[in-house]
Amino acid sequence: MTDPERWRELGQQLRVDSIRCAAVPKSGHPTSSMSAADLMAVLLAKYLRYDFDNPEDARNDHLIFSKGHASPLLYSIFKAAGAITDEELLTFRKFGSRLEGHPTPKIPWVDVATGSLGQGLPIAVGVALAGKKLDRLPYHVWCLCGDSELAEGSMWEAFEHAAFAGLDNLIAILDINRLGQRGETMHGWDLASYTRRVEAYGWAAIEIDGHDVEAIDRAYEEALSTGRPTAIVARTLKGKGVKAVENKDGWHGKALDDPEQAIAELGGERHIVVDVHKPDTDAQPHTFESGALELPSYDVGSEVATRKAYGDALLALGKARGDVVALDGEVSNSTYAEEFAKELPERYFEMYIAEQQMVAAAVGLQVRKWKPFASSFAAFFSRAYDFIRMAAISQADIRLSGSHAGVSIGEDGPSQMALEDLAAFRAVHGSTVLYPSDANQTAKLVAAMADLDGISFIRTTRGATPVVYGAEEDFPIGGAKVVRDGDDVTVIGAGITLHEALKAADALADEGVSVRVVDLYSVKPVDVDTLREAAEATQGRIVVAEDHWPEGGLGEAVLSAFAGEELRFTHLAVPEMPGSGKPAELLATAGIDAEHIAAAARELVAAAAVTR
Amino acid sequence: MTDPERWRELGQQLRVDSIRCAAVPKSGHPTSSMSAADLMAVLLAKYLRYDFDNPEDARNDHLIFSKGHASPLLYSIFKAAGAITDEELLTFRKFGSRLEGHPTPKIPWVDVATGSLGQGLPIAVGVALAGKKLDRLPYHVWCLCGDSELAEGSMWEAFEHAAFAGLDNLIAILDINRLGQRGETMHGWDLASYTRRVEAYGWAAIEIDGHDVEAIDRAYEEALSTGRPTAIVARTLKGKGVKAVENKDGWHGKALDDPEQAIAELGGERHIVVDVHKPDTDAQPHTFESGALELPSYDVGSEVATRKAYGDALLALGKARGDVVALDGEVSNSTYAEEFAKELPERYFEMYIAEQQMVAAAVGLQVRKWKPFASSFAAFFSRAYDFIRMAAISQADIRLSGSHAGVSIGEDGPSQMALEDLAAFRAVHGSTVLYPSDANQTAKLVAAMADLDGISFIRTTRGATPVVYGAEEDFPIGGAKVVRDGDDVTVIGAGITLHEALKAADALADEGVSVRVVDLYSVKPVDVDTLREAAEATQGRIVVAEDHWPEGGLGEAVLSAFAGEELRFTHLAVPEMPGSGKPAELLATAGIDAEHIAAAARELVAAAAVTR
Repeated sequence: MTDPERWRELGQQLRVDSIRCAAVPKSGHPTSSMSAADLMAVLLAKYLRYDFDNPEDARNDHLIFSKGHASPLLYSIFKAAGAITDEELLTFRKFGSRLEGHPTPKIPWVDVATGSLGQGLPIAVGVALAGKKLDRLPYHVWCLCGDSELAEGSMWEAFEHAAFAGLDNLIAILDINRLGQRGETMHGWDLASYTRRVEAYGWAAIEIDGHDVEAIDRAYEEALSTGRPTAIVARTLKGKGVKAVENKDGWHGKALDDPEQAIAELGGERHIVVDVHKPDTDAQPHTFESGALELPSYDVGSEVATRKAYGDALLALGKARGDVVALDGEVSNSTYAEEFAKELPERYFEMYIAEQQMVAAAVGLQVRKWKPFASSFAAFFSRAYDFIRMAAISQADIRLSGSHAGVSIGEDGPSQMALEDLAAFRAVHGSTVLYPSDANQTAKLVAAMADLDGISFIRTTRGATPVVYGAEEDFPIGGAKVVRDGDDVTVIGAGITLHEALKAADALADEGVSVRVVDLYSVKPVDVDTLREAAEATQGRIVVAEDHWPEGGLGEAVLSAFAGEELRFTHLAVPEMPGSGKPAELLATAGIDAEHIAAAARELVAAAAVTR
Repeated sequence: MTDPERWRELGQQLRVDSIRCAAVPKSGHPTSSMSAADLMAVLLAKYLRYDFDNPEDARNDHLIFSKGHASPLLYSIFKAAGAITDEELLTFRKFGSRLEGHPTPKIPWVDVATGSLGQGLPIAVGVALAGKKLDRLPYHVWCLCGDSELAEGSMWEAFEHAAFAGLDNLIAILDINRLGQRGETMHGWDLASYTRRVEAYGWAAIEIDGHDVEAIDRAYEEALSTGRPTAIVARTLKGKGVKAVENKDGWHGKALDDPEQAIAELGGERHIVVDVHKPDTDAQPHTFESGALELPSYDVGSEVATRKAYGDALLALGKARGDVVALDGEVSNSTYAEEFAKELPERYFEMYIAEQQMVAAAVGLQVRKWKPFASSFAAFFSRAYDFIRMAAISQADIRLSGSHAGVSIGEDGPSQMALEDLAAFRAVHGSTVLYPSDANQTAKLVAAMADLDGISFIRTTRGATPVVYGAEEDFPIGGAKVVRDGDDVTVIGAGITLHEALKAADALADEGVSVRVVDLYSVKPVDVDTLREAAEATQGRIVVAEDHWPEGGLGEAVLSAFAGEELRFTHLAVPEMPGSGKPAELLATAGIDAEHIAAAARELVAAAAVTR
């Protein structure tokens, strides 16, 4: 058999297997798999450099299915590569199988979860950045994209960044099968409309018939030498090869009615196993120098913004650990990531105002075991919330720093104030949510984040606040700090409200009221024991004050920790849409300043105690 | 004075006033205002059609500052138009002033809040859609965009959709001043890079010197007759006209050091008042036929998916009310918005897979008083979370329907499962969060949403569930329904878990345990009274079961309602990342099916009661 003959056979096998595996659960996306089968057959047989026995090999290529719903095709590729058995292939979508409806890294040859469209390519940009700028290895990143997902702006952030960074190791394969979920896409088979856009962003584009294996071969060959990121713009047929579904509307996300007939039409089952090329290099990934960690320290009583401490600590961490990298969304002079950027430019990625691409790049970088810290205003991580949600499914270890939390930012007004970020990040599976009140604490928590699994988020404050902790204190993740002892009432704060709580405690002390102040710097996981002890010690009287909407933040984290135990509970949170003003004016208006905290505590003390 | 002379003078006035107002609080973005001053001067003096005395006039043009941080310029325009006094201008950023750091609709001439970059243009697309397709009025939408924000993918969703919809009433003014917050933008003054992209998307583009008022005049003139959406790509100088800051890095978001000197350099204060052209048409906005509302009804005991009931009810609502419009993100055959799309195509907007543009378009449509309902999978609204956050600041009235909630969707796997949506939507200011369990209830809630203020969200279920309520029952917003009376223990569910709760109650009844079942269909606002009564009636024993992560959903809404009152409380929520499987398998694995609910209830009944 000639190469093209073998590729065509392999393409048919991938189609047949896509149909077969979807036939078992009677669900999945065989038709979206069939359109890209020939594109993937040629890639697998000739171009991919991947050691399926050693998926962690740094020199492997990466294959990312941005159109994650084409999972039957991906799993059929794994079978064709000899990585899974035919028997396992047929467990598709079955409870307990790792071959889920959409790919996840439960499968060793899958880098990241996809299935929320428009995310694979931005993540591929991150992996390609790692290859070019950090690992400095010649691997390629191949990314299969659907045409429907080209409607997501995040894809165009990816096109933009890949060209800007000169990622000639990135090849996007655009499977233009014309049909979306509920009908034709905006551009149908107008390949030129895609080519025009992609080229406008600075990519090379190669238009082909996506079922002509020789044309596919030539396109890949060419893509490897354009010196630019390259898009293969392939005209394909959804459901290609099976008359009942080929190029027909109404077959998205459906198993075929008559799989036997379809398989026969495609020439029956095949069991070709491809000996996939292994990476043809002995090169080792580049590493950066490491050293001893010298965290910054701050004098108790001085005033330092926690965002500044973030920047200082990130730089210290970067100097100590060659695997730490930083990203920022064009606000590095506000988040203080600029300190890292200036001293360690080789490991800094300016992501401009593209928060989705920033988080996606972080996910891509951690695929290659780098330790990314990405920063922006906390409010603007809401832009990337779907990426953060998916990063959790990707089992990604990424660290996010959100500055300018709450009304305490002052004059800039509500568009710049994060008031929902704690709720949003708490509701990310496996997340860690930190909210320091002081510079020394911030430094310790930033250092701890480097070794955390999953999504970790640190919320920092714009204004300078007093340093209350000595540099030698420890702040374990999942801990809380009793900053002030007391037995009449407990006030729980974090970040800016911790300082208001301390002021309130001082004022009440003058009145003879003994206030316990708890710093809930670890919002998730939360320190149930310290909270319980505080309630015991202060007759169940608890005030929580937070610079956040009432829902999903500190207050509800505390109530969840008590899970129905009786409390005399007062929750102070931002009740109405704030405007502009001085921080003190806005804290007062929101009812979360020292005066309001003191009033709430006073009222609780006047009420009956909880008998325990 | 000739026109150009007057325009130049007006441009200088706008600069001077931008500097003056920022000088008071010593904050704000005068330099970002100065770059666009000439562009705005010509617009205000010659092209804008706007009756400042009647901002609600349907025939007015719309001026949206996508670069919201240039608020000093916008407020200076208001002064030049005679809409505000010089005295008010100088209240910029002051506590209590409506002239906040970034514009909001507290100001009658501001349509929407901006300040999170990349949102103004997508919203402008929505307003322009209203103009072309609904109002059918000749107004124009002028949108001032920064160059930094062109890095946001959402801007390119807007370019894509505007061209696709043929919005020749939309003019984007791109203020290419080269400098972002922390340095140069990706493309600096490479105007061609923007023109290439914009033209690739199908817009007309006109490159000009943004300080040449005659060129600006010609460009606007031309823009009105291209027959396409048009971008004015204007090369400008940040801080134009003041040597200390002009085209200098480091002056983003800062008041000038020496405002007096700067004002002198610009020729001093001026107090030109422009007689802005009023809309030159008598046309009235188009309206669509209305009729009697005939909501669908379903037989008790039949099985209907709530997402289907959403589609049915939306269509009924659309037939009854000519002001109701629908949008969907290319999944209308899953959300059942397709019913509306098929019967009322004039009021349906296909937004393809661009959830940010979808929510932005909804915000834009409601600027013109239409009642948008936008639908997608609930998980994918996380893509638009920043737009939803900002919509609350915009005081927008939009209605979002999220289908495919939770693990109960089954085989598709976690990427398609909304498990954080309740937390995210609860933490939106002024939001309403609904989660019906039955088709008749869904229909009633959808009808109620049409008249709700603010952001409302309805969460629907993929699978068919039994109809438990008669079509005549009412479901007030903020209510809860006691579906089953009982005095041993209360089980609270909503959506899919309401049905599991009922099954559990049946099983426990056989054991002699009397279970009260509460349907918490209104997650926000929550019905505190009904919850309290249930706790009273069942000795404080409460089980909450929800198809959502433990954080921020039903469980925490319930705990917040009790605010520290003693309970015997068990919270069943999704504890680990789900995979694929049958809905029943996934509900069981998550511990939120009837069996787990029954076990939790049994355990609570065995424990000591709360004495009240």
